[in-house]
Amino acid sequence: MQRLIEADEIEPLAIGAWILGTGGGGNPYLNYLNCRRLYDEGARVTLIDPADLADDDLVAVVSNMGAPLVGQERLNDPATAARAVAMMEEYLGRRFCAVMSLEIGGGNGLQPLLVAARMNIPVVDADTMGRAFPEAQMTSFAIGDLPMYPLSLADVRGHEVIVKKVTSWKWMERISRKVCVEVGSIASTCKAPRTGREVKDWGVHHTTTKAIRLGQAVQGARRRHADPIAAVLEHEGGKQIFRGKVSDIQRRATEGFLRGKATIQGLDADRGTGLVLDFQNEFTVGSIDGRAVVMVPDLICVLDTVSGEAIGTETLRYGQRVTVIALPAPPVLTSPKGLQHVGPRAFGHDLEYRSVFAAAGAQA
Amino acid sequence: MQRLIEADEIEPLAIGAWILGTGGGGNPYLNYLNCRRLYDEGARVTLIDPADLADDDLVAVVSNMGAPLVGQERLNDPATAARAVAMMEEYLGRRFCAVMSLEIGGGNGLQPLLVAARMNIPVVDADTMGRAFPEAQMTSFAIGDLPMYPLSLADVRGHEVIVKKVTSWKWMERISRKVCVEVGSIASTCKAPRTGREVKDWGVHHTTTKAIRLGQAVQGARRRHADPIAAVLEHEGGKQIFRGKVSDIQRRATEGFLRGKATIQGLDADRGTGLVLDFQNEFTVGSIDGRAVVMVPDLICVLDTVSGEAIGTETLRYGQRVTVIALPAPPVLTSPKGLQHVGPRAFGHDLEYRSVFAAAGAQA
Repeated sequence: MQRLIEADEIEPLAIGAWILGTGGGGNPYLNYLNCRRLYDEGARVTLIDPADLADDDLVAVVSNMGAPLVGQERLNDPATAARAVAMMEEYLGRRFCAVMSLEIGGGNGLQPLLVAARMNIPVVDADTMGRAFPEAQMTSFAIGDLPMYPLSLADVRGHEVIVKKVTSWKWMERISRKVCVEVGSIASTCKAPRTGREVKDWGVHHTTTKAIRLGQAVQGARRRHADPIAAVLEHEGGKQIFRGKVSDIQRRATEGFLRGKATIQGLDADRGTGLVLDFQNEFTVGSIDGRAVVMVPDLICVLDTVSGEAIGTETLRYGQRVTVIALPAPPVLTSPKGLQHVGPRAFGHDLEYRSVFAAAGAQA
Repeated sequence: MQRLIEADEIEPLAIGAWILGTGGGGNPYLNYLNCRRLYDEGARVTLIDPADLADDDLVAVVSNMGAPLVGQERLNDPATAARAVAMMEEYLGRRFCAVMSLEIGGGNGLQPLLVAARMNIPVVDADTMGRAFPEAQMTSFAIGDLPMYPLSLADVRGHEVIVKKVTSWKWMERISRKVCVEVGSIASTCKAPRTGREVKDWGVHHTTTKAIRLGQAVQGARRRHADPIAAVLEHEGGKQIFRGKVSDIQRRATEGFLRGKATIQGLDADRGTGLVLDFQNEFTVGSIDGRAVVMVPDLICVLDTVSGEAIGTETLRYGQRVTVIALPAPPVLTSPKGLQHVGPRAFGHDLEYRSVFAAAGAQA
């Protein structure tokens, strides 16, 4: 099945992707504007179901890589996004049949639309995380032990690098990250090319549609003057974790990541307590009184309490009234192999993964 | 003109290259052993004159890149050296006609022999420095503003990176250096491929032969129980700068380089004074009482006072009796454009280049 992505679906895609970004993936606003301009210029992007890929179709997997904070100053653009994909085509000597997101979360949820519009190929309704994560080995393709190279990387100055061969996903992360940092901690990348078979077997499916529907749920609640956060929780089967006011934020762009810690003082039912959120581009663990109450790979989303708009790790600031919610992670991430890649220990937290959805039976 | 490099020329090549390395380029001993083994296995390497290259011949320019100190622990091998060149052939879809040194100095003076023996192509009797230097933009090809990409890089673990496009030689240095550091501060590289025309116009010619002859002069002096250092000075038209004993050495492997400072207390005619040598892989400036007495691009060579054997920045140590000499640099390095690339300011020393050969009229 394939269909056009309508012009009025771009905004809900941006809203939904920003929520699923769990603080990272980059603010989608600029990519939203880029998509609108491309549509205004006549471009239309087709969305195809992963099930409709032929086994030997060649699929590009794209993302903007780096520290989200830097992306506020060095702006992403469709030409650089497409350049990384064109580089890979030149390197392989083959053309891509379609393009998909590395991560549906944040601006990267819209990145394939920029490429699709410029290169006239469809977007696959899938990603490799169902959210956003900071590192190369934190994908369903890595969990599936699929080949991890080559990778192409392009920056806005015209620098182009191909990581031709590596010996592990972690080495791909290490080498490509160093290049990314050197060119300014933001670069457009095209990850290891995938076959249609691999996308069907290991992709996280229908996440573009999921993000659009989630964004539409938020828009609907806003139109009805209903609570957008309640709409998000209902739409995704999520749980409210904490409500309060941002009272402190420590943030540093380091080694190609945005790392730090945010403290939220409780309001309403949570008055008198505080939640500390650790992040590495994305929120990783939430703790109350030093006890982890929510952790990766559960999606930890910080939303504006009134509008339901997601807040990124780079835009979180003192005084914001926020509601922290958790959404269930795709099953591939919570499998034993998945947890090795994206569980709390993968982020340096010596914690056994315990899902907030475990009690309710929604997750293992 | 082309001829075989004889088995008994490998040792003098190593001796001469180590002297021309001015402390860097890596200790040639391991590459010397590698060459001998290849010759023992039946390999023979042909040396061709750059004048005999056809204008459109494709020439590989190779070097082992990184911090010399690391090369003492992670050993260079012919397979990895050749892998970088094979990667470039795969990337270009063309075969190389010949291979040449990036730098004749140190182990890199022998690096093309390893490649030549494995890939059965001749070595061009030329390099791009007539010595060794630490950075990518410090070559005659960079001084000639020739294209600076692509570059291929391979490490012993099997990691392979292609720097496909950069916007300046300095950017090539920055990006490739970061990759080199990440894989352990040693990697085999194949630099931007050159045409025969470019090598003829911008190469530093006949430096392989020069290194062999220089080494033979040292060997001859040793056999005659004559002073090998006097033989070096006579063969190259060099000058003795200082004689003494190493009294202090500060050395750190940092950012892919070996940086530091050595102090030599004077003996004989130089008794009562001290020479301080700054280095970044190679010796860059020699100072007495804070006044620079010798500086790049003049070749600053530290030799064992008795044997005339060169001493590298990674093997210099307390108590060694050494003689510091200067040899004249190739004219391309002392041109105004050359000095921008390899003069003292290129190494952070705020000094106007003054050659020790200026008074003698040997240099501008």
